[in-house]
Amino acid sequence: MSRIFVEPVRWKAGHLEVLDQTQLPGRHVTVTCRRVSDVWGAIKKLKVRGAPLIGIAAAYGFLLGMRRKIKARPNADLSAEAERLRAYLASSRPTAVNLAWALGRMHDAFLRHAGAPAAKRLKALRAEADRILREDINMCLRMAAHGARLVRSGDRLLTVCNAGGLATSGYGTALGVFYRAKAQGKRIKVYACETRPLLQGARLTTWELLYNKIDTTLICDSMAARLMQQGRIKAVFVGADRVAANGDLANKIGTYMLAVCAAHHQIPFYAVAPSSTFDLSLRRGADIPIEERDPAEVTSLYFKRPIAARGVRVYNPAFDMVPARLVTGIVTEKGVLRPPFGKNIRKMYGRAKKRP
Amino acid sequence: MSRIFVEPVRWKAGHLEVLDQTQLPGRHVTVTCRRVSDVWGAIKKLKVRGAPLIGIAAAYGFLLGMRRKIKARPNADLSAEAERLRAYLASSRPTAVNLAWALGRMHDAFLRHAGAPAAKRLKALRAEADRILREDINMCLRMAAHGARLVRSGDRLLTVCNAGGLATSGYGTALGVFYRAKAQGKRIKVYACETRPLLQGARLTTWELLYNKIDTTLICDSMAARLMQQGRIKAVFVGADRVAANGDLANKIGTYMLAVCAAHHQIPFYAVAPSSTFDLSLRRGADIPIEERDPAEVTSLYFKRPIAARGVRVYNPAFDMVPARLVTGIVTEKGVLRPPFGKNIRKMYGRAKKRP
Repeated sequence: MSRIFVEPVRWKAGHLEVLDQTQLPGRHVTVTCRRVSDVWGAIKKLKVRGAPLIGIAAAYGFLLGMRRKIKARPNADLSAEAERLRAYLASSRPTAVNLAWALGRMHDAFLRHAGAPAAKRLKALRAEADRILREDINMCLRMAAHGARLVRSGDRLLTVCNAGGLATSGYGTALGVFYRAKAQGKRIKVYACETRPLLQGARLTTWELLYNKIDTTLICDSMAARLMQQGRIKAVFVGADRVAANGDLANKIGTYMLAVCAAHHQIPFYAVAPSSTFDLSLRRGADIPIEERDPAEVTSLYFKRPIAARGVRVYNPAFDMVPARLVTGIVTEKGVLRPPFGKNIRKMYGRAKKRP
Repeated sequence: MSRIFVEPVRWKAGHLEVLDQTQLPGRHVTVTCRRVSDVWGAIKKLKVRGAPLIGIAAAYGFLLGMRRKIKARPNADLSAEAERLRAYLASSRPTAVNLAWALGRMHDAFLRHAGAPAAKRLKALRAEADRILREDINMCLRMAAHGARLVRSGDRLLTVCNAGGLATSGYGTALGVFYRAKAQGKRIKVYACETRPLLQGARLTTWELLYNKIDTTLICDSMAARLMQQGRIKAVFVGADRVAANGDLANKIGTYMLAVCAAHHQIPFYAVAPSSTFDLSLRRGADIPIEERDPAEVTSLYFKRPIAARGVRVYNPAFDMVPARLVTGIVTEKGVLRPPFGKNIRKMYGRAKKRP
């Protein structure tokens, strides 16, 4: 049960190795990031993706950058450089707050050891990045345990995008729930939305679920409502990229459509998100920045062949926002949050928790 | 305004010429159907698609087949052959009722002239097919006039699949409404859902709308709900493949999702469908047969490159069903039907109308 499906990022010999997820499932290519800009590019271009995982990758990116600077100028005050590095890595993608959260932790670790000798500073940064990775594994396992209580044998479950091992340290958020339910002997069937435009559901989730021997059916995103109408979906489980203080949440584009349709059919809608995904500095979901991406993702099928009339305008938001009133529960490592979310999030995480 | 955008099918020198819509917008290829099986294949493989157009194509297919038989055996009683031909062509696709409707008319015309000399029988069949085509043009123009009254200048409108000139004799159903509104000087902006898996929205609708100088923005199907949430959609206009006696309707997969989301956001949802699309022999939408198509349409992006894990199961319904309670109005050539649809459909078309 605690077996890690895959290691999507790995620190090795002073570099960050990244499984290039844009090539999956066809090709398994590992990319070595030797410079901070490699890490930035890997996040920007979705070689590394998934809210928890980009936090982890950015943490190692911070280590990579500061390591180089500390080695070059072991006695210098590098606080301006650290601040710039943090801002640079945070600029790679705007929506998932795990990025800022992990960079905040790395930056704090840097500041805590600002006066220490170079070797100690490096060790502290390495330890903090490793801790973020290990904590993510543990949070995934705890979320899976809480979430699996919501699943019964025979359930047919729906998910979108990839909230699996490939989106985390290796076990997954929403998909972790499925793995745990299966390990408990529950027979489940999962419908995976393909997740246009970048097809994380078709490419990554079907691969990951079949690898883990989950009964999986691929659908186009627009087919989910029909399955619900036919009574073929028992519950929806999705990941999240940022949860606001009132329980509104941002996740992959298409999630809002699923939430509206689930509510219409009175089907439970669960998000599975570790505490690193909560942003209590934002009162509501409308304040979450929503990334818009390259029109070519839509006009060319997976960047290759043009499929639309030349010159057509495109709207390509990478995420959307689900208001708390459409959410049945949020599965966290501490348990399952239920409405009223504002109050219960404050209770679970305390009022004091603020973003940097 | 009455200009035909394109001729998607054309009877020429005893053959049926078909614009191969699977090649659009990249290539403009005309296919000549010399045998009935060519017409059957063109419909099955979606070279010819769109509910009204497959009715027209099947009518000419019937003409093609009977022409050959009458010429070969001018004095024979061909009624068994006519019945077989009708059943064969009707088997090409199950959901759009226009197919059965047009074949019923051709078959009736054959029976009416059963005792006549060969030349007269051929002339009657040709005249009936031409009449079906001409009537479709007129119905499209009348629907456009009725539908355009529902559109105001400044409106942002949403559509799915291709309910345009390419789906009809050349003017369109839902898109015809947009053309007429534009011709009336109304400034409109249209969002086109790409319509996975076969991308009729991305490939055909953007091409057709830009050709007709409509301000067009392409989105992935899953993005429609977000546009609605942002208040960016004034109304939804779609075509239909079959309307049951109670106003339930089948249309391209994804239409039901749009109807649920439109209702959630209190956005009017209109279907635009000529009388040839109504099937008063079916009491409700659940009785409409829904075609399921090749899994490869989903697992390979537009049949070319695999995008999913090998061996994954696929659910690929080509259509879905929108219950009448989610429909604001149905624009027909006789006017705009409003709820209660059962009563108002009976009033408009009379109780007597039955499918063959």
